[in-house]
Amino acid sequence: MLKYPNRRSVLLSSKENKMICYSNRGQTLEDYINITNKFYLERNIAVIHKKPTPIQIVKVDYPRRSNSVIREAYYKTASTTDYNGIYRGIHVDFEAKETKQVSFPLRNVHKHQFEHMHNVNNQGGCVFILIRFIQTDEVYFLPFAKLKFFWQRMNENGRKSIKREELQKCAEKVKMGFSPPLDYISVVEKYVGRKG
Amino acid sequence: MLKYPNRRSVLLSSKENKMICYSNRGQTLEDYINITNKFYLERNIAVIHKKPTPIQIVKVDYPRRSNSVIREAYYKTASTTDYNGIYRGIHVDFEAKETKQVSFPLRNVHKHQFEHMHNVNNQGGCVFILIRFIQTDEVYFLPFAKLKFFWQRMNENGRKSIKREELQKCAEKVKMGFSPPLDYISVVEKYVGRKG
Repeated sequence: MLKYPNRRSVLLSSKENKMICYSNRGQTLEDYINITNKFYLERNIAVIHKKPTPIQIVKVDYPRRSNSVIREAYYKTASTTDYNGIYRGIHVDFEAKETKQVSFPLRNVHKHQFEHMHNVNNQGGCVFILIRFIQTDEVYFLPFAKLKFFWQRMNENGRKSIKREELQKCAEKVKMGFSPPLDYISVVEKYVGRKG
Repeated sequence: MLKYPNRRSVLLSSKENKMICYSNRGQTLEDYINITNKFYLERNIAVIHKKPTPIQIVKVDYPRRSNSVIREAYYKTASTTDYNGIYRGIHVDFEAKETKQVSFPLRNVHKHQFEHMHNVNNQGGCVFILIRFIQTDEVYFLPFAKLKFFWQRMNENGRKSIKREELQKCAEKVKMGFSPPLDYISVVEKYVGRKG
């Protein structure tokens, strides 16, 4: 996020919007995923969408009947994951996180998100996190079962992060390319085949 | 929706918010579904959520670093359906619509929503619409294949709505009760069993 001085009101042009979303640092993990999802959709490979950001609307103006303007609203904490959809009959549900650090802090995953993933996993969905290390521009596919292991370890001995070396062992590195930029469905395919 | 005089700014208290959402006419289809989804979630029957309303944010105030206030935003048209999730390994994706009329106007389903349903159906998801007739408080489960039939009929001979009598023949009436108010998963179960 860009840093704003206190009490400054910021008008977001589409360019500025982009600057904030993209963290002004080239493409983010969200960009990679959105472009990849579009690629999958256009080729009938999979139908996966990002959910809209949940917002609490407090005040709405109705200057005309046809169009209303939201004048006061707040960001809400997401209670589910950001992405879900379907790939060849498989329900796919995942969260995407990136970190500047050399290990992945588990506090990036909220408790209710973990619970949601747990529930979807129990229903037979393919659940995972995509973790990007910004410094090295590497993305790992961590299946829910492994996330659960680290989550339980945190609750047992207080280790609040996953080292990159640990991910190299128990997660799958997602191949990055030009089109699609982040072919995570090939890992889903591999992972589901492996399970079955 | 409540009608507002022009150029009036409306502050929505939680009660007023409820009035608008609930159309001030007892429970809406959305209420039925939300309560039912909560029921399913608590009993590990299914994990199905309503997606947040998509909003285009234009202006954000940052009175303090920690909390930002959205000062200008607009409602966007949804490009997917409102509800999706998983039930025993089955990807479930649906739209919910209610009408005061005696037939269901197909213009209530946007073209991109139809396309989304088509794509998800092709990937093997269980796709349908729940249609509520407000006058009789009846809810029908219309599977995508049947919706497609009426959609094509509209494009061929211009009939823009589905009569309730037609739904009585080719759609499944959803049992309504106290808890859960609208047990549509039992229809999914029946429908998926029928297909296989």
